[in-house]
Amino acid sequence: MKYPAHLSVLIDHLKKLPGVGTKSAERFAFEMLSWNAEELQAFAHVVEQVPQRLTLCKNCGCLISSEECNYCKPSSASKPIMCIVANPRDVFAVEGTHEFKGYYHVLGGLLSPLDGIGPSQLPIHTLKARIQKFAIEEAVLALDSTIEGDATSLYLKQELASCGVQVSRLAFGLPMGSSLDYVDGGTLARALSARSSF
Amino acid sequence: MKYPAHLSVLIDHLKKLPGVGTKSAERFAFEMLSWNAEELQAFAHVVEQVPQRLTLCKNCGCLISSEECNYCKPSSASKPIMCIVANPRDVFAVEGTHEFKGYYHVLGGLLSPLDGIGPSQLPIHTLKARIQKFAIEEAVLALDSTIEGDATSLYLKQELASCGVQVSRLAFGLPMGSSLDYVDGGTLARALSARSSF
Repeated sequence: MKYPAHLSVLIDHLKKLPGVGTKSAERFAFEMLSWNAEELQAFAHVVEQVPQRLTLCKNCGCLISSEECNYCKPSSASKPIMCIVANPRDVFAVEGTHEFKGYYHVLGGLLSPLDGIGPSQLPIHTLKARIQKFAIEEAVLALDSTIEGDATSLYLKQELASCGVQVSRLAFGLPMGSSLDYVDGGTLARALSARSSF
Repeated sequence: MKYPAHLSVLIDHLKKLPGVGTKSAERFAFEMLSWNAEELQAFAHVVEQVPQRLTLCKNCGCLISSEECNYCKPSSASKPIMCIVANPRDVFAVEGTHEFKGYYHVLGGLLSPLDGIGPSQLPIHTLKARIQKFAIEEAVLALDSTIEGDATSLYLKQELASCGVQVSRLAFGLPMGSSLDYVDGGTLARALSARSSF
């Protein structure tokens, strides 16, 4: 199947989206052909403006749309506690729980030697400086439960030991609403060993 | 979770893609945040240029990238046969088989009373005019095997009866590489009744 050149270019761009292969990209592209010129123009404008309109805070790494970072404001964080996450998106997930009132620090990635991301790529110095600056008492590691997330958590625990900060980590256990039949053995073992009095 | 306004707008645009819900759109948007300005600019440019660069042929309805339609050229169609499909995309699917050498006609949709698409919305007059013009002897209906596709096929069969053209339809039967265990009853019944000598 030989598509017109412009369509092929559009499909190639869409294939860069996560989880989108050739078939999905083709489906997206053909759908976009049915959008009218105004819709296409509006979409193109939004995409083009992303670098100007959405930036990462130089201090905490959170996603911001203005000069000033809402997350860095001392007023928004009442407690000397800092949540350390991998990506800007994770901040929204934690915020969505309404359970955390404190500072955030976005690492921008996890340790992953296979992808060439070693300790020197993670902004540990910035993190340590912010912990000192805000006199943080507890650092909550909110990282993925994967090999990379575990390795990064362990590394941060060691690095932050010298900062005199208490390091905690998200709890492991049954997901809400889960049935024991479908929970994997590893999760059940962690839930058992971390059982709480009831 | 309250995203910056620009991010919300981007997510809303991405949600218009087929099969993309809020979660996928959020994933796409955050991925796009990691693209550099040149990539975003290039993508935006391609999207913006779609109405100028990709149009539908006024005669056959096929997707074309230039003034002249390759599918309408008499040289490309050696036999007086015309394949009738619902969407421009279907033309590429038929072309991909390398089994069809003839003219194409894109209806631009299927009969679907629930969506307000009746016989008057389908370009039957153009189709009849083209059948006469090219002295087509056989019209191959290559429409979906759905209620809408079946209704449209039946409608076209009746309409084209007066044109003195032989109307055929894609064969129904087992998909290639299928196992009888997994073939549905309807398909198997059609495959049985349309069995061929071997």
